[in-house]
Amino acid sequence: MDRKTKPPGSLGRLEKLALRVAKIQQDLNPRLARKRICVYAGSHGVAQEGVSAYPTEVTAQMVFNFLSGGAAINVLARHGGIEVHVIDAGVDAVWPGDLVNEPRFYQRKVRSGTRNFMREPAMTPVECEAALEIGREQVRIARADGIDLIGIGEMGIGNTTSAAALVAALLGFSAEEAVGRGTGVNDAVLAQKISVVITAVEKYKTAVVDSTADHHPADNGLYWLSCVGGFEIAAMTGTILEAGKQRLPIVIDGFIATAAAVAAFAIDPSTREVCFFSHRSDEQAHGKTLAALGVEPLLDLGLRLGEGTGAALAMPILEAATKILCEMATFDSAGISEAVKAEA
Amino acid sequence: MDRKTKPPGSLGRLEKLALRVAKIQQDLNPRLARKRICVYAGSHGVAQEGVSAYPTEVTAQMVFNFLSGGAAINVLARHGGIEVHVIDAGVDAVWPGDLVNEPRFYQRKVRSGTRNFMREPAMTPVECEAALEIGREQVRIARADGIDLIGIGEMGIGNTTSAAALVAALLGFSAEEAVGRGTGVNDAVLAQKISVVITAVEKYKTAVVDSTADHHPADNGLYWLSCVGGFEIAAMTGTILEAGKQRLPIVIDGFIATAAAVAAFAIDPSTREVCFFSHRSDEQAHGKTLAALGVEPLLDLGLRLGEGTGAALAMPILEAATKILCEMATFDSAGISEAVKAEA
Repeated sequence: MDRKTKPPGSLGRLEKLALRVAKIQQDLNPRLARKRICVYAGSHGVAQEGVSAYPTEVTAQMVFNFLSGGAAINVLARHGGIEVHVIDAGVDAVWPGDLVNEPRFYQRKVRSGTRNFMREPAMTPVECEAALEIGREQVRIARADGIDLIGIGEMGIGNTTSAAALVAALLGFSAEEAVGRGTGVNDAVLAQKISVVITAVEKYKTAVVDSTADHHPADNGLYWLSCVGGFEIAAMTGTILEAGKQRLPIVIDGFIATAAAVAAFAIDPSTREVCFFSHRSDEQAHGKTLAALGVEPLLDLGLRLGEGTGAALAMPILEAATKILCEMATFDSAGISEAVKAEA
Repeated sequence: MDRKTKPPGSLGRLEKLALRVAKIQQDLNPRLARKRICVYAGSHGVAQEGVSAYPTEVTAQMVFNFLSGGAAINVLARHGGIEVHVIDAGVDAVWPGDLVNEPRFYQRKVRSGTRNFMREPAMTPVECEAALEIGREQVRIARADGIDLIGIGEMGIGNTTSAAALVAALLGFSAEEAVGRGTGVNDAVLAQKISVVITAVEKYKTAVVDSTADHHPADNGLYWLSCVGGFEIAAMTGTILEAGKQRLPIVIDGFIATAAAVAAFAIDPSTREVCFFSHRSDEQAHGKTLAALGVEPLLDLGLRLGEGTGAALAMPILEAATKILCEMATFDSAGISEAVKAEA
């Protein structure tokens, strides 16, 4: 990197990103040419508590929008040369039969939405494992397809409440710190979301779902995913875990995807190495969640949409970084004079 | 914008950017498909004062690198689907004859480098006007070629000192505030740069180049461009002024290009409307210069290379923003339920 025709370090974070990818791929000519974003969708039982500005059927309606190419993620992914997979991890909807022919749509429904975690755990441990497996499968498919860079995004009315409960439980944030306005709720709904998160964290802090070793410690990602997570969140956690195992660079979208990363890092801290955080969302808890993880996102554009939109904007920057290593001339090859003397 | 399938405002700055471009182009389907970066090069007399880590011949060597496609700007521009024009605005070099056949290279040398502004003004008013015209010409060429979005970048050993003197004079920064490490100079060279800027601002604050109305007021962009600017800086100022006149959206690269914008805004404040600031550079004065202009850059990646590299990374994001307006489905077209009630 320091032989390229530029003052050492002058490409800032691009240089560090390129070197990280080179290390993950074990290749001095890293390649991120083929890119794919997996958009996981799931319905949330907790939406019954009135925590969103939108009705729950929007989750399924947006799946159709993703498939017909009219959503923000479709526009931004097309722009960035990124493929989109849409995965039903647990949407409360019956799909028309002809959707089985849709090659980019994966019908992997664990259940028609999570349970309302104000009353009972969102998932059983078996359902949580099934959701993780949905996410792992996408990494295997990506590897088989020759994908160089995978991204994760989501859709699920009510899922900022689920993600807030997850980060509150796993990172020790207060409910007020963890809850934001999501799609844009008013003060009354914001207060309701905070109340739901306080109750849920208190409830499951003591009431254990399952007493097996895998699921009971209070700092356990799997335990909290089961109690307050969503199918799409657990699927993203599964994607991160498998990407870590298979050394596939992965781009994390916004607050909900970052909550999935919080769970993944609790389960397997080594997955950090393959994760690139795309942006700092406008959802108020996202900045402090990234700070708690000690990561710096690539972009800060005030997005708060989800779907993988931030990942779609960041992936081309990551690819650009790798091209610095692959395509730039060196001082020697270009016959350029170097600095007059070594500088501090 | 608010009828698109997303909560209102949830695409943050992308929405504002799209609306700005729509307003500039007077088109609800704004288009930034064809993009070009103009890289202006110039040699600096003030480089004789020992203000850079690199020898002055690097300016000319880098022009060859730009033309052979091996520089960082070439790599990033190719990646972003952006054309590159290279313009010799005043490089101290004699080009081989065959370079006249290079279609993307504009030999427009005003003079073989500016004068050393520690001794005399960098340019005469006539030379300054010639440099501005070089920049204006590129806007006319861009318009004729059907370019939708133009960007500016530069190369010129010694030009952070010139840019620092310019922003110090025009924005009232102290030399310590305005001077940074440029390509990466050590403490001794940094102190020398500060001393040069202090001397220059003091010298020209009272000694006027020319007593015509155009050139004497102390807050006059043209006056300070002539005294302490560079040919590539004045050319960038010319590009901004003409882009403002022709309503062509323009992306400003790093600290040096922003210094050119400071001069342009002093000359014609209305040019602000067409300017998009690509990134916050690692050069220490850049952040405060952007703040003084009241603008927020798109990226913050610690770049400090120049050449238009930050502009090349930001242009695709700006284009993505416009595609939101052009390509996204609306709630009506996609049959999606809206928010349950109007939210604050």
